[in-house]
Amino acid sequence: MSDLKTRALHYHQFPKPGKLSVESSKPCATQADLSLAYTPGVAEPVREINRDPENAYKYTNKGNLVAVITDGTAVLGLGNMGALASKPVMEGKAVLFKRFANIDVFDIEVTAPSIEAFIETVVNIAPTFGGINLEDIAAPHCFRIEKELRERLDIPVFHDDQHGTAVIVGAALLNALAVQGKKLADAKIVFLGAGAAGCACARLLKVMGAQHLVMVDKSGVLKTSRPDLHDMNRDLATSRDVNTLAEAMVDADVFIGVSAANALSPELLKVMAAKPVVFALANPDPEILPSLAHAVRDDILMATGRSDFPNQVNNALCFPYLFRGALDARAKQITTAMQVAAAEALAEIAREPVPQEVLDAYQLTELSFGKEYIIPKPFDPRLMARVSGRVADAARAEAALDQ
Amino acid sequence: MSDLKTRALHYHQFPKPGKLSVESSKPCATQADLSLAYTPGVAEPVREINRDPENAYKYTNKGNLVAVITDGTAVLGLGNMGALASKPVMEGKAVLFKRFANIDVFDIEVTAPSIEAFIETVVNIAPTFGGINLEDIAAPHCFRIEKELRERLDIPVFHDDQHGTAVIVGAALLNALAVQGKKLADAKIVFLGAGAAGCACARLLKVMGAQHLVMVDKSGVLKTSRPDLHDMNRDLATSRDVNTLAEAMVDADVFIGVSAANALSPELLKVMAAKPVVFALANPDPEILPSLAHAVRDDILMATGRSDFPNQVNNALCFPYLFRGALDARAKQITTAMQVAAAEALAEIAREPVPQEVLDAYQLTELSFGKEYIIPKPFDPRLMARVSGRVADAARAEAALDQ
Repeated sequence: MSDLKTRALHYHQFPKPGKLSVESSKPCATQADLSLAYTPGVAEPVREINRDPENAYKYTNKGNLVAVITDGTAVLGLGNMGALASKPVMEGKAVLFKRFANIDVFDIEVTAPSIEAFIETVVNIAPTFGGINLEDIAAPHCFRIEKELRERLDIPVFHDDQHGTAVIVGAALLNALAVQGKKLADAKIVFLGAGAAGCACARLLKVMGAQHLVMVDKSGVLKTSRPDLHDMNRDLATSRDVNTLAEAMVDADVFIGVSAANALSPELLKVMAAKPVVFALANPDPEILPSLAHAVRDDILMATGRSDFPNQVNNALCFPYLFRGALDARAKQITTAMQVAAAEALAEIAREPVPQEVLDAYQLTELSFGKEYIIPKPFDPRLMARVSGRVADAARAEAALDQ
Repeated sequence: MSDLKTRALHYHQFPKPGKLSVESSKPCATQADLSLAYTPGVAEPVREINRDPENAYKYTNKGNLVAVITDGTAVLGLGNMGALASKPVMEGKAVLFKRFANIDVFDIEVTAPSIEAFIETVVNIAPTFGGINLEDIAAPHCFRIEKELRERLDIPVFHDDQHGTAVIVGAALLNALAVQGKKLADAKIVFLGAGAAGCACARLLKVMGAQHLVMVDKSGVLKTSRPDLHDMNRDLATSRDVNTLAEAMVDADVFIGVSAANALSPELLKVMAAKPVVFALANPDPEILPSLAHAVRDDILMATGRSDFPNQVNNALCFPYLFRGALDARAKQITTAMQVAAAEALAEIAREPVPQEVLDAYQLTELSFGKEYIIPKPFDPRLMARVSGRVADAARAEAALDQ
């Protein structure tokens, strides 16, 4: 890790600090250019937008500009690092948005004295943007922030830690169950971790057809009888008579960990059903290492959040294309239907033959759908058109229904 | 003008809307690159900044990133156009910052329900930035906003409409008086317009040595006896017995208009002292056209805000280099001393021989210090090093005094 540390700090510092640069996208070499970019010419688009706000999408960058906004309360797996310290992550997110979907991003790090103040701040700067990507905001206040912003703003608002993860988990699980010969509607699914990501994953899986879900957090199974549940996870509680993770794992088809390093004991793998699916998504250290899990039983299909193991559940497969599709369709929200469309498109791509250029990018000689390849690779050039296209189609279909 | 309109709208719309693009400044072609730009490598600079906030200047773009922020209440000469409609102007400002001083800018358009809410919004997003450029905010609330933000933030906060204009007017007036054989301390100066720009200009000229100033607004001369003055212009009121613009213009050496089109009657030029200086800065149409003024008397030295007349008082000569110097010196404020340093550096450059590349850029065969050349041209490559350098020197000298 010390080598990674050295390389990462060097990458961020040289040849100049940070990872972003704002460039002019129009000629600005001469006085004549500047008389269009600035006074006197710039008065013309100002008048047009003042006359009709929709013209902002015609004459400014608003329609391709997403704010990546955080309060720094849940940065990566590091916890509350503060707004300023989260800036490298937000700049990194901007790099991914640009690299994968050609979306311009302003990273905005917010220090607000209250949740209300954070919400007001985002509402107040929202005219600048075509969409808002909330990032690394702790539960449970992330729920309230996202809900209120979605209600108050007419541009897409998306909390990636929740719904981005959910889309990839949805895509990965569709394919994992197919490989293991199971169906989503029949699968017994156990979640360990009922935070922002866990709840969003569970909720999206239910929409996609999952019917047997048990959520487990530090206090045990989320049961309808538990008094400590908050509004945001109460709907995911079970009335079944299971109380502990160990009880829930008996005959489970799927384990999804969005909790902490080494949180899953290898012993619990033994009580799962045949051909189980184990997603150990804690980062950087998963709930159980693949090597350890495979040593316990050899019929497991595993995924983690790590790029150095097979089947990386990686949000970069989702958020660039969800926003690309939403912006292209000028959607006012990123709806559940759009998220399901993204998950299905991702699952579909992984089931198709892998193009040579993907093999080349990853220096692989072979890669085909199966236990070690259930999710597309991030540098797969099919993602942009296919996933964004399906998202935009879903957005347009919903808009048409609303007419 | 309709041709300009067509060209300006086309420039803003094609090949894609707007004028800005956010790019990665670091390699992001491979999985290995992204493992440094994002997880897992990005955790390292996060930890370093969490440990010491100063490290944000080492590992993120903060130190080269300025927010251009507006509420859209005083856009160009168009008035209150609203936040969204001001976006082309703010993007244009970003283009100028980049072109002239290699500074990255996020344009932020704010719709806040109150002045307090605007201020809180800027304070809350300030960790993102190395400096704040307030833009196109109406008087008098721009005064309070700038004052409070300067007090609350530890990064430079600068209202360009006030102080940027003041610096260029200061530079131009130093040279205009030199050409006309007068001294700032002796000159009788009349301001028409006591808004944000007028007050800031008057105040900076006083710091630079002006001793005889009369401010005039729509209600007449700003006199200490007037009950309608607000806190921000009371200190500029005179106790002399002059009541009208016409009275103030008698024997005046300098007229500075920051008011409205055609606000200066040609008749009033006749009562001015010999060899007068007339800065008619209303945009796009000045208080009096140069052709009209020169027809009345031929000993006038004129400047306007227009690029198609000689001596353009153009803020682009100032704000890029003021911020460049402030960022380079890591100044916590843009002080009056830094503004005076910028004005003096600008004045000095205009008195020196013009490099061939400037003549080429403007397709001129000759340009030398005198009545029609008192301020450098925006595309003069000497500006970056000279003006920024002097500003940074002034900042460091003040920081040293504060130790």
